[in-house]
Amino acid sequence: VTQQQQQQQGVEVVEVLVILPKNNSYVHSYPRVAPALLHAQQRLRAAGQFPGLTFKINYEDSECGNHALFALVDRACERRPDLILGPVCEYAAAPVARLASHWNIPMVTAGALAAAFSFKSGEYSHLTRVAPSYLKMAETFAAMFHHFAWKSALLVYEDDKGERNCHFIVEGVYMLLKDVKTYTYTFTSREQRLDTDDLLHGIYETEVVIMCMGADLIREVMLAAHRRRLTNGSTIFFNIELFNVSSYGNGSWKKGDKFDNEARQAYASLNTVTLLKTVKPEFENFSMEVKKSIQQADFNDCQDCGSINMFVEGFHDALLLYAIALHEAMKNGYNKKDGAQITALMWNRTFEGIAGPVSMDANGDRDQDFSIMAMTRPEAGTYEVVANYFAINGSFQVLSAFNMDHFTLRGRRKILPDTPD
Amino acid sequence: VTQQQQQQQGVEVVEVLVILPKNNSYVHSYPRVAPALLHAQQRLRAAGQFPGLTFKINYEDSECGNHALFALVDRACERRPDLILGPVCEYAAAPVARLASHWNIPMVTAGALAAAFSFKSGEYSHLTRVAPSYLKMAETFAAMFHHFAWKSALLVYEDDKGERNCHFIVEGVYMLLKDVKTYTYTFTSREQRLDTDDLLHGIYETEVVIMCMGADLIREVMLAAHRRRLTNGSTIFFNIELFNVSSYGNGSWKKGDKFDNEARQAYASLNTVTLLKTVKPEFENFSMEVKKSIQQADFNDCQDCGSINMFVEGFHDALLLYAIALHEAMKNGYNKKDGAQITALMWNRTFEGIAGPVSMDANGDRDQDFSIMAMTRPEAGTYEVVANYFAINGSFQVLSAFNMDHFTLRGRRKILPDTPD
Repeated sequence: VTQQQQQQQGVEVVEVLVILPKNNSYVHSYPRVAPALLHAQQRLRAAGQFPGLTFKINYEDSECGNHALFALVDRACERRPDLILGPVCEYAAAPVARLASHWNIPMVTAGALAAAFSFKSGEYSHLTRVAPSYLKMAETFAAMFHHFAWKSALLVYEDDKGERNCHFIVEGVYMLLKDVKTYTYTFTSREQRLDTDDLLHGIYETEVVIMCMGADLIREVMLAAHRRRLTNGSTIFFNIELFNVSSYGNGSWKKGDKFDNEARQAYASLNTVTLLKTVKPEFENFSMEVKKSIQQADFNDCQDCGSINMFVEGFHDALLLYAIALHEAMKNGYNKKDGAQITALMWNRTFEGIAGPVSMDANGDRDQDFSIMAMTRPEAGTYEVVANYFAINGSFQVLSAFNMDHFTLRGRRKILPDTPD
Repeated sequence: VTQQQQQQQGVEVVEVLVILPKNNSYVHSYPRVAPALLHAQQRLRAAGQFPGLTFKINYEDSECGNHALFALVDRACERRPDLILGPVCEYAAAPVARLASHWNIPMVTAGALAAAFSFKSGEYSHLTRVAPSYLKMAETFAAMFHHFAWKSALLVYEDDKGERNCHFIVEGVYMLLKDVKTYTYTFTSREQRLDTDDLLHGIYETEVVIMCMGADLIREVMLAAHRRRLTNGSTIFFNIELFNVSSYGNGSWKKGDKFDNEARQAYASLNTVTLLKTVKPEFENFSMEVKKSIQQADFNDCQDCGSINMFVEGFHDALLLYAIALHEAMKNGYNKKDGAQITALMWNRTFEGIAGPVSMDANGDRDQDFSIMAMTRPEAGTYEVVANYFAINGSFQVLSAFNMDHFTLRGRRKILPDTPD
């Protein structure tokens, strides 16, 4: 049976190249994502929904930088893949996305979340993003600022000078808070200690503080703010928490040290913006299967490899979305080499992902919904979702646990000249 | 004769891939550089200095961006070159340099002048720069600020958001003027008109103004400064002019409009930092040959294609330098595939280039000397070289035409509060 005959019969063997870090210190490393892709591959085969479609999956190590380009080029010289999944890191993803466009190969990733990748008319024409881009997340803040009529923001973030997730996350917020007076406070923890005095000086001048940094640093800031009585409602604090999906709301104020009680009180003023999770029953099976295959693979050196995060889920759905689009393209007389047509068919559509419906916008980016969590029982220090933002129509939904007082600025200080009392 | 036998006999056919823009709106387009490379190729063959070495030159279009990566990858998949010449534009050069390093291919260019390319320990390990990097040029300013004890600088530049030469040039100056109070004024002429009022507000606060932008804009600023009596010696003005080598000192104040006289007076306060040219007799032949072959090629649409600029000269010398290094490598038992060894042999050496001696530093960057030109006959409006900076030993040489008054700040205004007279 020749390849042409296979195509006529609707048979395609799709060469998938997955480019992710091998090193499992990344939440999107390929040892963590591989079981999810295996699950998707098996499900696609078993479903009988796409007869004749077979996926052959190869992995290349992207590290989190130039290596992605090298791996792609070396492999593509021998045999050009039909589909690229990944990379996630921005600096790794950029050259891969450019070559994908040049070679007419669809690239689908749960990463490349920075704002620059939203511009699809040129070098990123073949890029589809199944995870929520930072601009989508930033819409949540834009909606809140509009809803509550807040006027100023201080953006505080840690720039690790490597992956730079917080840099790119805050860039998105900055871009969308156009009508708000914004200040920025950045530091590199590798090079300097966070100076809370210096930082809090800035806090006095703004209504809302939006932070992106590690849990320990957030706690340090909240404790310092609490000691200066900034947690009395005169300032509203936000923490952005996109990746450690499993950990949110579990009381990150608790550290087992003597400051726990104080931290719990401080965190009563801290809200968290995170992904809205709608989980359907199949997700439990998926989650268990992924955990099982990770245990079998025996990653002894990986503490939290069993947890499902948005990357694991995203890459599962990426393969599914591509299969739907390729199947449709083939029905229309195209084949797996028609990258632009397949890409177009992935955009502007909704499909059932592993954790619920996934909606792709007309620009090939996922319409993700976000939740705002707040402490609803201060004496216990527990969090609940109090509001949701729905990207698809830009609506802001307030839930029963929502307390308007919590989002209302009280007793704003006037900015006084710097004189002693 | 097999390839192995050829090597044993000292015969190597070197595959050279030149990656430059095809479009001759660039001063480093390949129609302009090709005749110089042909000249070098013929000279190398005729000289008999490197018997057995033959150079096969292929061209690929880099445009001034991503296309360079695409061109390299597509060609290298078929046949990996032994030497890469170019690209010049920073955004085109970066991925090419990374792949050159990954594939162990020497890359020699008269471009990639931005400061980032100076860091050769990682991704740019195989990059050799035969043209003066912006950091080298910036040393000239550092030496002058030290020599004349100036304390503050205003850096004014046009960011074209494309090639961004002035952006990268000024970045170099900014990096080396660490002990000086520096202010930056940038604008994009495509998007906005230069607001000389706004700009001159900054000039009042600084001793030295360093500009990088088109000749017409320089003239606009100088005229405006003159009208506000800022050209009376209270401010020292510099213009950076690296590329249009043929035009400097020819009286760019002259435009044939009614402001010529005023402009000539204003330019008495404007100094130009440019490349020091030491031209040996062979250069005239070279220049004539290049002009002739460009005329024969009949570039009707290219007005100034006959002029030799530092890129044309640089790529000629790049091929020469590589030949010297390869020859030496082969004598030591290496061959053309030993990219790291050949690269090391290009660094930290001096050789005779087409226009005079070329000195490469231990980091693989050219030690270029620079000249400072000033108007020495204000009534005629003519310029002369008044001082030189020698990169190799960091010395500053004052010539007979130098006038200390011209570089001495006079009648510095105190910065007064913004009240009416």
